[in-house]
Amino acid sequence: MASPQTSNPEPRAETTSEGTQLQRARADEITPEMRAVAERENLDPDLVRYEVAEGTLVIPANRRHLGEGLEPMAIGEVSSVKVNANIGASKDTSSLEGERDKLRHALQWGADTVMDLSTGRSNLAEIRRALIPESPVPVGTVPIYEMVDRVDGQVAEITPELALDVIEDHAEQGVDYMTIHAGVLQAHLPYTEGRTTGIVSRGGSIMAQWMTENEAENFLNTHFEEICEIFRRHDVTFSLGDGLRPGSIADSSDEAQFAELRELGELTNRAWDNGCQVMVEGPGHIPLDEIEMQVDKQKEICDGAPFYTLGPLVTDVAPGYDHMTSMIGAAVIGWHGADMLCYVTPKEHLGLPEPEDVKQGLIAYNIAAHAADVARDRPDARSWDEALSQARFAFDWPRQFALALDPEAARNHHQAANSEENHDPEDVHFCSMCGPEFCSMRITQDQRDAAGSDKLSFDGDYDERPADEVKTEQGARYPGVFDNRT
Amino acid sequence: MASPQTSNPEPRAETTSEGTQLQRARADEITPEMRAVAERENLDPDLVRYEVAEGTLVIPANRRHLGEGLEPMAIGEVSSVKVNANIGASKDTSSLEGERDKLRHALQWGADTVMDLSTGRSNLAEIRRALIPESPVPVGTVPIYEMVDRVDGQVAEITPELALDVIEDHAEQGVDYMTIHAGVLQAHLPYTEGRTTGIVSRGGSIMAQWMTENEAENFLNTHFEEICEIFRRHDVTFSLGDGLRPGSIADSSDEAQFAELRELGELTNRAWDNGCQVMVEGPGHIPLDEIEMQVDKQKEICDGAPFYTLGPLVTDVAPGYDHMTSMIGAAVIGWHGADMLCYVTPKEHLGLPEPEDVKQGLIAYNIAAHAADVARDRPDARSWDEALSQARFAFDWPRQFALALDPEAARNHHQAANSEENHDPEDVHFCSMCGPEFCSMRITQDQRDAAGSDKLSFDGDYDERPADEVKTEQGARYPGVFDNRT
Repeated sequence: MASPQTSNPEPRAETTSEGTQLQRARADEITPEMRAVAERENLDPDLVRYEVAEGTLVIPANRRHLGEGLEPMAIGEVSSVKVNANIGASKDTSSLEGERDKLRHALQWGADTVMDLSTGRSNLAEIRRALIPESPVPVGTVPIYEMVDRVDGQVAEITPELALDVIEDHAEQGVDYMTIHAGVLQAHLPYTEGRTTGIVSRGGSIMAQWMTENEAENFLNTHFEEICEIFRRHDVTFSLGDGLRPGSIADSSDEAQFAELRELGELTNRAWDNGCQVMVEGPGHIPLDEIEMQVDKQKEICDGAPFYTLGPLVTDVAPGYDHMTSMIGAAVIGWHGADMLCYVTPKEHLGLPEPEDVKQGLIAYNIAAHAADVARDRPDARSWDEALSQARFAFDWPRQFALALDPEAARNHHQAANSEENHDPEDVHFCSMCGPEFCSMRITQDQRDAAGSDKLSFDGDYDERPADEVKTEQGARYPGVFDNRT
Repeated sequence: MASPQTSNPEPRAETTSEGTQLQRARADEITPEMRAVAERENLDPDLVRYEVAEGTLVIPANRRHLGEGLEPMAIGEVSSVKVNANIGASKDTSSLEGERDKLRHALQWGADTVMDLSTGRSNLAEIRRALIPESPVPVGTVPIYEMVDRVDGQVAEITPELALDVIEDHAEQGVDYMTIHAGVLQAHLPYTEGRTTGIVSRGGSIMAQWMTENEAENFLNTHFEEICEIFRRHDVTFSLGDGLRPGSIADSSDEAQFAELRELGELTNRAWDNGCQVMVEGPGHIPLDEIEMQVDKQKEICDGAPFYTLGPLVTDVAPGYDHMTSMIGAAVIGWHGADMLCYVTPKEHLGLPEPEDVKQGLIAYNIAAHAADVARDRPDARSWDEALSQARFAFDWPRQFALALDPEAARNHHQAANSEENHDPEDVHFCSMCGPEFCSMRITQDQRDAAGSDKLSFDGDYDERPADEVKTEQGARYPGVFDNRT
């Protein structure tokens, strides 16, 4: 066996003995992080504590990152639906400045958390250590990628000791949650043989290769308690990876997927027994009619642990538009109970996202998450829609743009359309879609004016709060709001 | 009252006495159009006849257009979900060449039908007459717009006689289906008073203005039998307009909407009694959790008449991205039973669509319609997904691109990503998203190769049919396929 690269030589950081958010919630303590979450989500702090204690709400907050400016946020049933953006590069070279740009881009466009999926070989730890203090949102990683890097791609040579070393390094660097592919077992692999697209999770395929070549059980599973011990010390949250998620409509809801899910249910309870916070990752590619069933299954098998899904894509046929094929599934799965949605960009299946792809992915997923919040009738979710529609009906274009998810895009579309026709874009009581004579809202208003009656204005009051306040009240981040707040 | 412009002086076209598709289906005749639909949809001609007779399937096919190259298609429960694209301009000037370009664009990007929503004043009839023979797909119109034009915008001056004249003109020009806003009644108007966004249908607001100013009942309702008589002669299909559709999440599922829907149910049966084909239009803006209920209501109240919906948008907050907010609702409503989806472009609420907006709208809606077909498990819907995923797993990039909804976009994303890294884009066994070492599908394949067993390939056969054949087998049009076929 080739000798693995030595682990990060930096001395182990001091850790406190105060326990994880889960342990403290169980001990009836309302932590400052729970209070911050309660305020942000407009929830009772007691409820937040109760949900964290139950494991149905996680606050991914590595103690080190907490000391470096992390703004506590929560993922779970009682909070608004969150959106994750993946950053990182798989190229051989990755620069700190490049990753910094991606982080800024993700934050600007409203990511609630970011995952650093870098797989280059040289300065990964250094870049990560530099980025974490610059991120006010939780940072997640998939440590198995670095394990592969440390054995120069010779997957079979990864040892449990190396694995724990990498995980400890990430925990010490301040990583808030890690994807751990502990659920895929030797016994599951035969179930993938008849699949159309085999194993499509990188972590899952690496784990399958390791198990096959070593004829041994998944080391992340056999050493799960040691991982818990590390996670507990730093309060790192588990994101239990779905290594056997379906990569095509044909493979959805098959035995490989559900056999792993049952193991993820076991691991959820093992993590809880060890005082660790847990969320569970989900697919992938699922046809629309199977989404609700899959959420119900995850929630039942994993005893209500938060569900963190990738998409799902509801069809395989539109490479180049998978932010769109997957936002349909994301909205529906969020409505039925998924708690965080990992974005998919237009480059999915084809290449690495460019900054514009990151933006498009986040716009799509902020729409999906908000649509889910509206459908779940979360407190105040609809007030954003209401405020924007009031501004639309009042022809208050500047306020409509300010309230828009992407003010610049809305303004540009409108101005381009109206400037062609020589109208002042901010003062028109119609848009060029219908034109001045066929504007239904103008006609309706004229009718109301003619009737001269208060009865003809909408039932509620006109929402006059600042646009950013309307957009932020749900606890999720939205494009641009963060920039204005900090 | 100002004198309305004279109607089109062209002599009335000859009409045959052979009856509508509905009448002939009831008389147990399988028409050539039903046979064409059966072949296209892969259905038994007897089933097509039965569904047309029941009113649950429409074949919008004006006799004149049928003689000018219309390719019969169907909209209804047993057929695949269809997509409509709106063309036409609201500018004062609209040229034949401009409209021709829009039609070509809509056809190229996979519209199953097109609606000409032009509202200019001069040469509308001439342009429509020129376009219809150039459209192999059904053409729909909203004749109330031309009624307004003919009275120079003085809505109150529209007379029933003028209305019937305009409708007759459209029927003679070969229009296959018309939106008729006959469902909005005087009694419904008070229900709209407390709404956030009032009346957002152009036709609905025009009708409301006419009723209010004339203190008279909706002339399209009071003269519905005369309209039926015209439609029956030409076999024009009703698209019963939803003039009171909700224009914001706040107004969804309110009494205004459902009062009109009940009247649309009455009108559906009156049209059927008169031997006319009918579909019913639907909203608009609906939160995700109300969509299934709304479809069930429409299908029950309208006795199974096909449902033709605009979106629905599942949130109001993203102007500039309403092709995306609405494709979520479109996929879900198609899955639950909507039969045709009217696209929404990024310019919705802001301005008139440019050609690129038409493309983006159609891509979004073809994804939504296909996702609905997959979820409804329509015959062969999943074979397209399966064929593409097989090609993806085989790293057969040219075939994956050919099978993609938008081959060019998929190829461009892939080539851009790989050329940066100096790989031959069509010969790589990975994509730059994961890079060569972390490609899960490559790892899975290596494992299968190492095992050297047939058991390790997917269960079914590799689909080797031409890409266009895979894409067309469902009866819907898809981007690019049409160009290759004609």
